[in-house]
Amino acid sequence: MALLSPLATEIAIPACALVGIVFSLVQWLLVSRVKLTPEPRAPSSSSPGSNSNKNGYGEYLIEEEDGVNDHSVVAKCAEIQSAISEGATSFLFTEYQYVGVFMVAFAVLIFLFLGSVESFSTQSQPCTYDPSKLCKPALATAVFSTVSFLLGGFTSVVSGFLGMKIATYANARTTLEARKGVGKAFITAFRSGAVMGFLLAANGLLVLYIAINLFKLYYGDDWEGLFEAITGYGLGGSSMALFGRVGGGIYTKAADVGADLVGKVERNIPEDDPRNPAVIADNVGDNVGDIAGMGSDLFGSYAESSCAALVVASISSFGIDHDFTAMCYPLLISSMGILVCLITTLFATDFFEIKVVEEIEPALKKQLIISTILMTVGIAIVSWIALPSSFTIYNFGSQKVVKNWQLFLCVGVGLWAGLIIGFVTEYYTSNAYSPVQDVADSCRTGAATNVIFGLALGYKSVIIPIFAIAISIFVSFSFAAMYGIAVAALGMLSTIATGLAIDAYGPISDNAGGIAEMAGMSHRIRERTDALDAAGNTTAAIGKGFAIGSAALVSLALFGAFVSRAAISTVDVLTPKVFIGLIVGAMLPYWFSAMTMKSVGSAALKMVEEVRRQFNTIPGLMEGLAKPDYATCVKISTDASLKEMIPPGALVMLTPLIVGIFFGVETLSGVLAGSLVSGVQIAISASNTGGAWDNAKKYIEAGASEHARTLGPKGSEPHKAAVIGDTIGDPLKDTSGPSLNILIKLMAVESLVFAPFFATHGGLLFKIF
Amino acid sequence: MALLSPLATEIAIPACALVGIVFSLVQWLLVSRVKLTPEPRAPSSSSPGSNSNKNGYGEYLIEEEDGVNDHSVVAKCAEIQSAISEGATSFLFTEYQYVGVFMVAFAVLIFLFLGSVESFSTQSQPCTYDPSKLCKPALATAVFSTVSFLLGGFTSVVSGFLGMKIATYANARTTLEARKGVGKAFITAFRSGAVMGFLLAANGLLVLYIAINLFKLYYGDDWEGLFEAITGYGLGGSSMALFGRVGGGIYTKAADVGADLVGKVERNIPEDDPRNPAVIADNVGDNVGDIAGMGSDLFGSYAESSCAALVVASISSFGIDHDFTAMCYPLLISSMGILVCLITTLFATDFFEIKVVEEIEPALKKQLIISTILMTVGIAIVSWIALPSSFTIYNFGSQKVVKNWQLFLCVGVGLWAGLIIGFVTEYYTSNAYSPVQDVADSCRTGAATNVIFGLALGYKSVIIPIFAIAISIFVSFSFAAMYGIAVAALGMLSTIATGLAIDAYGPISDNAGGIAEMAGMSHRIRERTDALDAAGNTTAAIGKGFAIGSAALVSLALFGAFVSRAAISTVDVLTPKVFIGLIVGAMLPYWFSAMTMKSVGSAALKMVEEVRRQFNTIPGLMEGLAKPDYATCVKISTDASLKEMIPPGALVMLTPLIVGIFFGVETLSGVLAGSLVSGVQIAISASNTGGAWDNAKKYIEAGASEHARTLGPKGSEPHKAAVIGDTIGDPLKDTSGPSLNILIKLMAVESLVFAPFFATHGGLLFKIF
Repeated sequence: MALLSPLATEIAIPACALVGIVFSLVQWLLVSRVKLTPEPRAPSSSSPGSNSNKNGYGEYLIEEEDGVNDHSVVAKCAEIQSAISEGATSFLFTEYQYVGVFMVAFAVLIFLFLGSVESFSTQSQPCTYDPSKLCKPALATAVFSTVSFLLGGFTSVVSGFLGMKIATYANARTTLEARKGVGKAFITAFRSGAVMGFLLAANGLLVLYIAINLFKLYYGDDWEGLFEAITGYGLGGSSMALFGRVGGGIYTKAADVGADLVGKVERNIPEDDPRNPAVIADNVGDNVGDIAGMGSDLFGSYAESSCAALVVASISSFGIDHDFTAMCYPLLISSMGILVCLITTLFATDFFEIKVVEEIEPALKKQLIISTILMTVGIAIVSWIALPSSFTIYNFGSQKVVKNWQLFLCVGVGLWAGLIIGFVTEYYTSNAYSPVQDVADSCRTGAATNVIFGLALGYKSVIIPIFAIAISIFVSFSFAAMYGIAVAALGMLSTIATGLAIDAYGPISDNAGGIAEMAGMSHRIRERTDALDAAGNTTAAIGKGFAIGSAALVSLALFGAFVSRAAISTVDVLTPKVFIGLIVGAMLPYWFSAMTMKSVGSAALKMVEEVRRQFNTIPGLMEGLAKPDYATCVKISTDASLKEMIPPGALVMLTPLIVGIFFGVETLSGVLAGSLVSGVQIAISASNTGGAWDNAKKYIEAGASEHARTLGPKGSEPHKAAVIGDTIGDPLKDTSGPSLNILIKLMAVESLVFAPFFATHGGLLFKIF
Repeated sequence: MALLSPLATEIAIPACALVGIVFSLVQWLLVSRVKLTPEPRAPSSSSPGSNSNKNGYGEYLIEEEDGVNDHSVVAKCAEIQSAISEGATSFLFTEYQYVGVFMVAFAVLIFLFLGSVESFSTQSQPCTYDPSKLCKPALATAVFSTVSFLLGGFTSVVSGFLGMKIATYANARTTLEARKGVGKAFITAFRSGAVMGFLLAANGLLVLYIAINLFKLYYGDDWEGLFEAITGYGLGGSSMALFGRVGGGIYTKAADVGADLVGKVERNIPEDDPRNPAVIADNVGDNVGDIAGMGSDLFGSYAESSCAALVVASISSFGIDHDFTAMCYPLLISSMGILVCLITTLFATDFFEIKVVEEIEPALKKQLIISTILMTVGIAIVSWIALPSSFTIYNFGSQKVVKNWQLFLCVGVGLWAGLIIGFVTEYYTSNAYSPVQDVADSCRTGAATNVIFGLALGYKSVIIPIFAIAISIFVSFSFAAMYGIAVAALGMLSTIATGLAIDAYGPISDNAGGIAEMAGMSHRIRERTDALDAAGNTTAAIGKGFAIGSAALVSLALFGAFVSRAAISTVDVLTPKVFIGLIVGAMLPYWFSAMTMKSVGSAALKMVEEVRRQFNTIPGLMEGLAKPDYATCVKISTDASLKEMIPPGALVMLTPLIVGIFFGVETLSGVLAGSLVSGVQIAISASNTGGAWDNAKKYIEAGASEHARTLGPKGSEPHKAAVIGDTIGDPLKDTSGPSLNILIKLMAVESLVFAPFFATHGGLLFKIF
């Protein structure tokens, strides 16, 4: 048996989670030291010697140097930040109310559907996989699945909401720190990202751990039923994430596209100019879309891959032999991840320091490398102490013998595939490399060639990530069947705290730049925040790459768990039922993307009209003498996103139900496989195309090289073409692309949760004819 | 047994093919009555009474009315046409030389690979499916496959080349007829399209029929070997088509994009203006890409679906019982198709006549409806007389009993799915409906929203066609396994002559407009040709819809035949070998699209530089005093397309070989299924997005409604945005989109041809490890 005793496991997991929570609170404390009230700043600037030159800059502030009044700037930053924070909070509350109604309704559906499997009988029944034993009734699974569904939804809300809170707490602070140097600003933004990353990772782990222990009080030794009920946690997490991503994505891009189209293109005013009525909505959007949405998304992936691994383990030797430590292997991997990420974070914030702009991207890249190397050691340790040297894993009807080193390789291959995806994404979206520079260069001949080159870049960027995913799948599948895939996904997500930290860093920097512009700070501040933001675009793309790669693995693992639960032993493409599922499934991401892109387009058109109206009817607005009506723009984004998130949400939530009920589990298997293999490609290409366009524009604007200067400056024809590309990329990279992760995951986890129902009552159409 | 005797079958098939050839020659004769030499026109205009007012216009010519000298106009048209024709001929000859070398090399490869299956033994061997009998040696299959491969390639060349010849023969004639009225011009363009359609359909049928009969002299009763060798015909046809589509697509769009970017956007001169140096290359491109490429493509689909049906039939009761008539069922369907299309054509050219512009689209639509209704009857007749009332079909290892009415339904469902795809395509790409009008409307806010709406439209347009394809697959698969799919594909292609006629009509009208512009004819002529062309854009999209839909069915049928031949009985997604194939296969269309789009982009950039150079360095060019150097632009397109078609071509041709040799038939099955379900979606969305953008631009330019006029006129901001969309759409709809059909078909047929080799020697990597 495993070296680690069950008691030690019971202690280690919550301990690591608590370490993560404490660490994130410490980071929050450090961020909060940057004061947003003008008065208390005085003592800190009165002792400049204490850490002068630490960042290669003296402690004097650029603003003072430029003669801008410090007090008024700080006050203005605080005011803008609170406007953004209030807007984001108010939107999220409204969104959560809507989604809350849906969640309750769906919880009832889960209860009714799962309860009906054995006609709401309270009698124990023979177990699915071992009919010689008695398991808890389907009604219990129905009740506990419903509970864990709501728990998952709630945890997802908490993850997204806290992320948004810290982000809107940190953005003005980042702006203010930018006055002291790019290094200080970087640390503030990065620390804030780390708060979110660690809170989310620790929170997700802790809630899952507590739920398992509470459920165990009822289930006792029926681990099959216990972990089947736990899958509701993943479904709840991802359902919230769907609406968070789609709603947030529509919100942010309606505002962004609308603001750009009138502000940058028609009125020729800079991005984030306070005269633009949509500017607050745009900044709110970053927080509700890129922060809260991303947080919910990755939490969902984490919850689902854990659930997929647990449910497969419960019917493997871990579950059959009641080996608690081995059973908790997925949770132990995540616990180790928190410790590894903690050390990794110190490399960015304490061990090294950023002095110049050029060091930002390498520093973020180092985070990825360090966390991956350390985690490889961590996985080896966990695999050594938590696993028996040999065990069996359930493999579609049979048991497969697996060694502990094989499972180490499964987790490791997922982890390293994530790193490769991250690097490839960086290569295709960072303006330090030729792909983005080629796209920028194509702007010479106008927007059309920019779009053609950008689309081609996105398509091309799919190749290596898909090979990386394919290799991970092959290795982990061959070694440990669907359990291998699930732990590979967990491997990729094991450094989620670091991944989220560098991911959240992007929108925080973006907002910091917005606040600098709105507060009327000097262009040198803006240059620094722009440099932070350009790196942020790349890290955002990397984060999306991780999210997509892990989503692919997670969905496959869930798919495998679904197939096991629905008692299918083969999914044969050469049967009509499966093949039509496959081709229709491959179509769903297109349908979904059509909906979300059209939604962004329509909402942006409304925003454009409103912004134009304000510019035309509010006297003195262009001259900066009058204040625009920010609230109306916020309302347009809010209304549009709440209304428009329903059809794509319905598509994703209803498809598995309709297919399962009317066409049965074989067709549903086809749909899941089809949407998975097709959705991954669109998601990767859409988010990389968008990231590349954004950075091609920034490349021209920054004018950092001879080549870039021949394309610029701002307002030149190539720059205008680049702005068009950037605008097109907005819905691709921030709405439809990242939402597709959730589409493929959610359909899989929903199928898994409803598998008992489909297996019993599904396939009505074929039963009738 | 079947009602139709073998002898009657032997007579009926070539007879129908000859009827098709004679009919197309008659159409050619009718087109040739429009004289391109000024002198012989005199007698016809001296007797205006003979058919005056027949088209609602008098026989007097607009040019005469406008005071433009008739003789010089005719001479100029003739001159331009001969320049286009020479350019196209010269390009195709160069292309065929390159591809010829490849074909010979690949033929050698086929011979070596297939010959090596039994080590080049000349001994007869036990048959694959019935080891109790002796079949001809693998060496014979190698020899005959190689021969039929070259035959398929040659027939494809002939199809494409003749199509191009008639198109470049007809375009100036269409221009001249436009002087007499839109109806006359329509008939000329449509007749010319019909020449191509009937020649291709009849030619493909006849060559296949002759090849079968010649091969039978050697094979005798070994039909299994005979029809296995015949599959080379499909591979040859599609290999040529690949290079035709990709090379032609790059050629035409490099020229088109290059010409538009400088001419329309920078210099503000109209499309097809003779001052634009790239204008001849652009018009040549329409003929080598949209005509020759499309012809080769559809010929390939036709050849492949016939081959797939034949190879499955040869191991079903038709082949085992040596029922020649039933065996020839696919050929009889195509023969009936020729007769049905002949009658259908008369509805467009003789029974009804177009009088006003608004009647063009309905007339083309009627062609689709009439041919589908008539063909339904035709299929019923063929199914009744050519099939036994009950027979068995090979179904992955077992034999499935099928009734003749079930096979009728299989063909019928394919046919009607084609009609549905056609209508949906029309709905999404014609500017008579709201989708394109919405896209046009989004141009108000600039190019970015235009692109967002256009992409969303393309994604959305996938939904119904995929359902139509899925239903066809389900019905035909359920009734008659892979044979059902193959005949469903044949059903969709049975009206190929009409499909190609309305398809070729588009580029001919496009060229006619170009010639009118270049010959300096009045704007009223141009308006008529523009109206013809707008309908042509829609029909081109419909043609692509057919091509894609049939390609999906064909590939699936070929896939099924491959699986049968490779002796796999299930393709289980739940095995790592298959799943990695599936996800990598789904990625291939993206890789391929990235290559082709980047190629068009790069070639267009070169073209832009050359066109700019000419405008800047040739004095008097803008004023129309000097002639541009057309030849250099033709050379740029030629060189670019020949060079750039190699990497995507290699990707498609090498993938099945590499996967088959190193990973084996299971992974290859996954790759085929993945590329099929993913490629279909991109192909449909790309071609519809492009078609919609093109027609949104035409909608604004034509200004036919109140709404359209608020967006125009030419040169307005919305129009400029629309031009950008149109330019982006060019490579999507004419290069990457339609080439994807061939990608999915070609990989499947290549796998089928090499199946014996892969089954014997494949999967090296797994054998080693």
